[in-house]
Amino acid sequence: MSKTELEGYRNKIRAELDRTVDFWVKHSHDQEYGGFFTCLGKDGTLYDDLKYVWLQGRQVWMYCRLYRTMDRFRTPEILQAAKAGGEFLLSHAWAPPMAGSRKCAFCVTRRGEAVKAQRSVFSECFYVLAMDELARVTGELQYQSEAVRVMDQIVHWVRVDPSGLGRPEMPGAVPLNAMAVPMMLLCLVDQLEEGRRELAEKYSELGQWCVHQILQHVQRDGTAILENVSKDGKELSGCQGRHQNPGHALEAGWFLLQYAVRHGDEGLKRTAIEKFMILPFHAGWDQQQGGLFYFQDVDGHCPTQLEWSMKLWWPHCEALIAFLMGYTETSDPRLLERFSQVYSYTFTHFPDSEHGEWFGYLNRDGKVELDFKGGPFKGFFHVPRCLYMCERLLDGLLGKPQAS
Amino acid sequence: MSKTELEGYRNKIRAELDRTVDFWVKHSHDQEYGGFFTCLGKDGTLYDDLKYVWLQGRQVWMYCRLYRTMDRFRTPEILQAAKAGGEFLLSHAWAPPMAGSRKCAFCVTRRGEAVKAQRSVFSECFYVLAMDELARVTGELQYQSEAVRVMDQIVHWVRVDPSGLGRPEMPGAVPLNAMAVPMMLLCLVDQLEEGRRELAEKYSELGQWCVHQILQHVQRDGTAILENVSKDGKELSGCQGRHQNPGHALEAGWFLLQYAVRHGDEGLKRTAIEKFMILPFHAGWDQQQGGLFYFQDVDGHCPTQLEWSMKLWWPHCEALIAFLMGYTETSDPRLLERFSQVYSYTFTHFPDSEHGEWFGYLNRDGKVELDFKGGPFKGFFHVPRCLYMCERLLDGLLGKPQAS
Repeated sequence: MSKTELEGYRNKIRAELDRTVDFWVKHSHDQEYGGFFTCLGKDGTLYDDLKYVWLQGRQVWMYCRLYRTMDRFRTPEILQAAKAGGEFLLSHAWAPPMAGSRKCAFCVTRRGEAVKAQRSVFSECFYVLAMDELARVTGELQYQSEAVRVMDQIVHWVRVDPSGLGRPEMPGAVPLNAMAVPMMLLCLVDQLEEGRRELAEKYSELGQWCVHQILQHVQRDGTAILENVSKDGKELSGCQGRHQNPGHALEAGWFLLQYAVRHGDEGLKRTAIEKFMILPFHAGWDQQQGGLFYFQDVDGHCPTQLEWSMKLWWPHCEALIAFLMGYTETSDPRLLERFSQVYSYTFTHFPDSEHGEWFGYLNRDGKVELDFKGGPFKGFFHVPRCLYMCERLLDGLLGKPQAS
Repeated sequence: MSKTELEGYRNKIRAELDRTVDFWVKHSHDQEYGGFFTCLGKDGTLYDDLKYVWLQGRQVWMYCRLYRTMDRFRTPEILQAAKAGGEFLLSHAWAPPMAGSRKCAFCVTRRGEAVKAQRSVFSECFYVLAMDELARVTGELQYQSEAVRVMDQIVHWVRVDPSGLGRPEMPGAVPLNAMAVPMMLLCLVDQLEEGRRELAEKYSELGQWCVHQILQHVQRDGTAILENVSKDGKELSGCQGRHQNPGHALEAGWFLLQYAVRHGDEGLKRTAIEKFMILPFHAGWDQQQGGLFYFQDVDGHCPTQLEWSMKLWWPHCEALIAFLMGYTETSDPRLLERFSQVYSYTFTHFPDSEHGEWFGYLNRDGKVELDFKGGPFKGFFHVPRCLYMCERLLDGLLGKPQAS
């Protein structure tokens, strides 16, 4: 591929990141109560004012990361919105205690009263991501110590005692290693360690544990990534055991690759690329209509999730990051070809040229099926993180100083 | 419409009911542990052996109802399977106590160990349906007293104290009147009352309460049915308040009509037909591609459920029953036209001429998107109940003795 082509990608991606940031700055800030509206229609119109804690945390993180690492986003408006989001989380993310345990809500009202809580760790994870990056941008230690406090709580739930999550124990439920959990923790380890020797030591064993847990999902003699395995890394029976999520595997791929590069682990680099990028892409790409399927069954049964054949924005975002990072680390042209293939599908299907930002949910044929820009699970996160990561990777490949 | 056309419908529907029963008798019986497999692929192959309590209860009910009321299904095989299903439920439906309260599981392993429980009343509702109909078929009073015992527990959770359901109270959560709950209870009242003066008296006030609760969902000056309203019957804000489910409204329609006929309530008959049949059908029918949408937003926003535009088998089943019952009660030709319209879409899209039974999940364009015949939410219920009800209604219209 010529330098001109790489330049073309880079310029398009840079412009798309600017448009995406503009969209959310314009439509998502709640000036009255702080935090972010995320239920935004095609043109940015608010269609619901509930605030989803995952998305609050992710937007704070993304704003702070852009502010900290890219000069053109170092604006008072972005900093102010991130701080207001962080304060909203500090004041309102925590639901009333349930069975003696405090958990973050999953969503809260516009003013911050808890509406719903999940019995999983993800609201807390995105809360940690937000607090830590906010600490880096503001220099305020209270945010960092809050991040570490909650991180330790999450690790306790995951590795020591899950009872505080409020999930009843059921005799027929097999204890799971669901890939989402070690992936998410690895992402948090990466976040908390950056530039901090003490925390890097503190979380070093946790990082290794996460990698080990993720690698247990390579199954069937290395031919498939399965989302759920037993606690000792065996395949589980039934739909749950055969469940695959190609976008998730690709995301795990770049998390692992990043970790491998930082730790100089060549074997893990190869595994990340061959098993968590090439394999799920090959299995998950729709040969007829293009795009990545959302869910699959490794034996080819029809998944029971109604949305299994839809093409969602975020798996494509993760694939773009994975293949570009893979290419950066290996110069393997296969990976750049895959990047081009995903780029071409993504940029002809997801961005909305009229109102900006991306549609999130296409049907199998690639037609927009849900036309909002933000919803309960789509906020300011996967699109800008992808564009941000890709811009930096392309700058690196082009020999430019990293985007600023 | 000519008598010949009605005969045509009747014969097709009768044949389709036979094929459907054959499919489930052949593929779903667990001869070893009792109960029913419901995860059945296109050709009946088992792809998961979990047992879903909703579907166990529904299949017991449907088998018993067919056995009791249609001579051609009065076979030892059907009775035996129903009893084994009932015994499986008695032994295995109940999950271990949580916070001092006993609830039915949502699904159990093949051998009957609880895997998951929901914090709602529906597993228990289908359990009651099964027990009561089993009592009618077998004459065994233990089943009937179990039905009444659990019914009273459900009514306690719904009307007196929901804390036993295990849902944490959240300060931002508005207490809801979700239409599913009074609908389901009205269905149970109808089941328990049949031919029993004492129970009819016991549940008479409950029946009135259910009707009142359902009617609260007629909103916007009588122009729309909304799935969720406040406890005092007001529209709620946001997506939750604007949510519509046309198939569900149509199902409520025939539940209400049945109640109105039994109680000789002409006003309620009109409301059931105009508000719960004509309105949701008009709003929910896809004018481009045909078929009923799964979910809608009353203001025309895009719903946030990924599957909103899919065409599911069961709303079409409910529409067929609703319009045929409406026509039977009123002789209004508009209703027979609607029946024909839904019949035509349904019979050209859902039945599988190759392996029998119906596909459940089509995309917006009417193409089969999930090709299994049974899954976690599709069992031996909506298809046979629809065919059973319609066969009887058509027999009535044709002046035959009710199907036997």
